[in-house]
Amino acid sequence: MKQSELFVKTSKTTLKEDTSTNARLLEQGGFIYKNSSGIYTYLPLGWRVIQKIAQIIREEMNAIGGQEMFMPALHDKHYLQATKRWDVDVVFKVISGQDKEPHFNISWTHEEIAAEIASRFVDSYKDLPFSLYQIQTKFRHEPRAKSGLLRGREFMMKDLYSFHTDEAGLEKFYEQVAGAYHKIFERCGLKAIYTLAAGGEFTASHTHEFQVLAPVGEDTIHVCQKCGYAVNDEVKTTDECPKCGGKFEAVKSIEVGNIFPLGTKYSEAFDLKYTDSDGQKKFVVMGSYGIGLGRVMGTIVEIYNDGKGIIWPDSVAPFKAHLIALPGKEEAAVMEAADKIYDDLQAAGIDVLYDDRRNTTPGEKFADSDLLGIPTRVVVSAKTLAETSVEVKKRSETEAKLVKISELAKHV
Amino acid sequence: MKQSELFVKTSKTTLKEDTSTNARLLEQGGFIYKNSSGIYTYLPLGWRVIQKIAQIIREEMNAIGGQEMFMPALHDKHYLQATKRWDVDVVFKVISGQDKEPHFNISWTHEEIAAEIASRFVDSYKDLPFSLYQIQTKFRHEPRAKSGLLRGREFMMKDLYSFHTDEAGLEKFYEQVAGAYHKIFERCGLKAIYTLAAGGEFTASHTHEFQVLAPVGEDTIHVCQKCGYAVNDEVKTTDECPKCGGKFEAVKSIEVGNIFPLGTKYSEAFDLKYTDSDGQKKFVVMGSYGIGLGRVMGTIVEIYNDGKGIIWPDSVAPFKAHLIALPGKEEAAVMEAADKIYDDLQAAGIDVLYDDRRNTTPGEKFADSDLLGIPTRVVVSAKTLAETSVEVKKRSETEAKLVKISELAKHV
Repeated sequence: MKQSELFVKTSKTTLKEDTSTNARLLEQGGFIYKNSSGIYTYLPLGWRVIQKIAQIIREEMNAIGGQEMFMPALHDKHYLQATKRWDVDVVFKVISGQDKEPHFNISWTHEEIAAEIASRFVDSYKDLPFSLYQIQTKFRHEPRAKSGLLRGREFMMKDLYSFHTDEAGLEKFYEQVAGAYHKIFERCGLKAIYTLAAGGEFTASHTHEFQVLAPVGEDTIHVCQKCGYAVNDEVKTTDECPKCGGKFEAVKSIEVGNIFPLGTKYSEAFDLKYTDSDGQKKFVVMGSYGIGLGRVMGTIVEIYNDGKGIIWPDSVAPFKAHLIALPGKEEAAVMEAADKIYDDLQAAGIDVLYDDRRNTTPGEKFADSDLLGIPTRVVVSAKTLAETSVEVKKRSETEAKLVKISELAKHV
Repeated sequence: MKQSELFVKTSKTTLKEDTSTNARLLEQGGFIYKNSSGIYTYLPLGWRVIQKIAQIIREEMNAIGGQEMFMPALHDKHYLQATKRWDVDVVFKVISGQDKEPHFNISWTHEEIAAEIASRFVDSYKDLPFSLYQIQTKFRHEPRAKSGLLRGREFMMKDLYSFHTDEAGLEKFYEQVAGAYHKIFERCGLKAIYTLAAGGEFTASHTHEFQVLAPVGEDTIHVCQKCGYAVNDEVKTTDECPKCGGKFEAVKSIEVGNIFPLGTKYSEAFDLKYTDSDGQKKFVVMGSYGIGLGRVMGTIVEIYNDGKGIIWPDSVAPFKAHLIALPGKEEAAVMEAADKIYDDLQAAGIDVLYDDRRNTTPGEKFADSDLLGIPTRVVVSAKTLAETSVEVKKRSETEAKLVKISELAKHV
């Protein structure tokens, strides 16, 4: 894509100092646009990042047998009333026309919907286990929406629901999901710590969170300095690790994912039963598993940045290479060479953002490039062309080097 | 995917007779699940169809320079108040916590959001033209939600917004979009008629609709029997075609897309101006262009079906081939051969649904296959294996033929 045609422009306006790093860099870079507190538009650049994250999640969900579907956002009140969650604080309710009484809410979660759908299709133990997931919007009335993409009122979530004949089946799948989650976060460049958490709104038993260490995080977790075992604030009772006797250290972190054993709470509410091999009717045992896509994106930015801008990991970068033409006094020759390099890189299957702007100074172009954080920067100028070369620099490194144009595609 | 592992099962329950064809076949086939009137879940099979349609739309939008983004669904009331649309009947408003006064609505359209975002990024005529699109959910309070996917309260829409310096630029792009729309519908197997419509909520000038002839359609359009020119009910004043003098015939149809010249209505509301080459500030001229993805899917089913089920066009079919094993008395041999064919077809890059169920009769399997409507059916049985062959039948044809297993992938 040519930068002259890219809708989004970087902004020189510095946001308020108390704005979180991810909000500041993503808004200045033109990745997102803030419509209201906790409500963002993903602009073309930001949407490319979300699509990359979504694809990684889909691959890992499909690998453990998850089937993708898409549930609605508008829920009749019978769903939340069945589980006594209709009057929970975070619920946004919906009114229409002259009617002031709400009959719907917008999705703050989808356990009820998933359980009701499953009840229509599950008869026998032979229909189990299975798992369904979606990438769909959640809405939560957060009085203190803040921290950019880290805590939103509207946010995109991957939510997976699993259905089993018994607790043993659930536990086995729960471990598989934990493995898939570790892969997802690792592929996104995040080191996520598997953390024991208390049960809550969703379940009576313990749950687990995936936490990424970051000073901006709203959570505090306690990580054993000896064995790495981690628990969150709710379950912490001692200074000593119950696994190895090591010492816990308290650290700030961001919750990027969570997994919940749900037991039969939702199956009971929606009469989700199966007939076992001995002919007995039993409630299906469920689990649910969430990852916030925007929060993953925001966390990546919190971890990967420097004073100049974002430093995207390859796997989620909006483009692989940032080609920058510096026309200078030999504009015609430089632009011709840069156009050809752009075509060649694209032909080699490399996603390139091409800064083809003619009336922008080299300084502005470099500053934009650092802000946008595309992994590899390729500069074309009269000086590099004199050596039939381009200057290549990794965003994560400081040293640039000359690379022959003929070897560029291979090099990138 | 193995049918024994596919979450969805077909249903033998016949829905009420007054249900539309698309709702009946899609619900019975396990493509969709009705959560409330006009509100559906796309189950894994149905979601595959939606993803195919989305991909076709993305390719054609990108081809005319559209850039994909994603705007939120929760809109602060200042957006609709700015264009005096806050109290329009179809708007769903949102309340939260103890506050009974709505401060938000959920997206019934996105013109306001798009115009406000553009106003932040457009300065000069050099920033124009450009176009942005998204595939996002719309919510409309339809008192008479009905007809399955044809008229929903919640539905997925591709909406494109374009921004120009003047009317001439808009008109040129408007024609490009019309061309792209014709390609999209044609690729989806639909013959869409370009139909003149009146202005409305969105614009004062004329607009255009893409209409597919179907008895179930809620619209009536008037098509000239001589030249094919078409107008909708709102703009029809005579029985005679104004283009050629031919005779209009009234026909029922489904609106699958629409395109609107918006002029400067939204630019004025959101102060979306650019500086022209002569230094003058002028309002940006906008257009908006919609396609309902669920409605396209429902329309395809209305057009492509017979007494037995759906007949998906190749381009949007959830799978390319439906492999059916008929184990019979030689179960071990047949299943082994079918398993191998399944692996080979997948290795050849063919999307296959494999009916590997062992305790289902051939009659049930064939009935399911006809209902699901996958384009090519491949049957493996002891009888076909005796000839080192499989039986291949197109869903759209009645004759089956034997094909050597070694030539199957090429054949499919």
